[in-house]
Amino acid sequence: MIIPEKQNIDLEENTILEVKSGILILEAKIIKKKFIVGIIKEECVINLAFSNFKNIKLIALTNCEINTIEKGVYFSSKDLLIKSLTRIDQLEKLLTIREINKSEEKLKEFLLYLSSIIGLKKDNHIYLNLKKYNFTQKLIGYSISTTRVTITRGLKNLEKKGWLKLEKKGILIPFKDN
Amino acid sequence: MIIPEKQNIDLEENTILEVKSGILILEAKIIKKKFIVGIIKEECVINLAFSNFKNIKLIALTNCEINTIEKGVYFSSKDLLIKSLTRIDQLEKLLTIREINKSEEKLKEFLLYLSSIIGLKKDNHIYLNLKKYNFTQKLIGYSISTTRVTITRGLKNLEKKGWLKLEKKGILIPFKDN
Repeated sequence: MIIPEKQNIDLEENTILEVKSGILILEAKIIKKKFIVGIIKEECVINLAFSNFKNIKLIALTNCEINTIEKGVYFSSKDLLIKSLTRIDQLEKLLTIREINKSEEKLKEFLLYLSSIIGLKKDNHIYLNLKKYNFTQKLIGYSISTTRVTITRGLKNLEKKGWLKLEKKGILIPFKDN
Repeated sequence: MIIPEKQNIDLEENTILEVKSGILILEAKIIKKKFIVGIIKEECVINLAFSNFKNIKLIALTNCEINTIEKGVYFSSKDLLIKSLTRIDQLEKLLTIREINKSEEKLKEFLLYLSSIIGLKKDNHIYLNLKKYNFTQKLIGYSISTTRVTITRGLKNLEKKGWLKLEKKGILIPFKDN
């Protein structure tokens, strides 16, 4: 199935899906509020069979191709099982971010998380091409439950401290300072 | 390896382990504070190979038997891979709990999470034998980053509202009211 850039689809609770290409956001309702519960890229398998989340929605940041996988196929394929383990890593990272109280520390941790998904390693830094993935400051704010204004201020502060460098299309994070 | 009740061991970051019997708490350091990042029982496989957590400690609530698993064995066994998927469920539940602001709602969600691990289904309720698993009110407090006093008050309030019933050794949660 193809999901065009910026489109979204609702997911059935028992779906198992593999992302073949592109980057998607997994949004869900917890109690009464919507949260980002994952950022998924190609080679990831998401098993919503035992999902604790309600109203799960996929939001395509770029054009995406996804496949749904039958339960039987999933549980008999070592490859698919291993691909779904990345979800553990991701949930651990999300949990870590949630536990941080200071908004600047939270933003740093989120940017490192984002680096692990869309970051491009270059020489002595990681480059986050936010524009390419339509990852707006508003969306960063949404990801860590804060406002765009707080993100804009936070990014400027982190630049002043030399932790990152703001560029036209994204963010440079030097290795040294992490 | 046997870990006696109430003892704890530190874990290497690359360990993969299977719990053969008993119940353990997985504690970790996030930034500078310690958190409970999992409650693990028999049949669970925990892969710390890509763990985002530091200073990981296992605290045995009951006498426990654990096995460490070689990386090669783990990645070639469908059974072990499937057993480690329960970690996804658990992390989702922990993330859900963290997103709840109201302390009473948080306590309810945590008790339901605990029910999914140590709960005993009986007639029209779930029974949590907290005493058997040395799951003190202090530990419940620690699990959701609050104090024992708040838990004691919260449990009494939930009993008044008929959501649960406090017993000598644990808690009864009627099915109807969930």
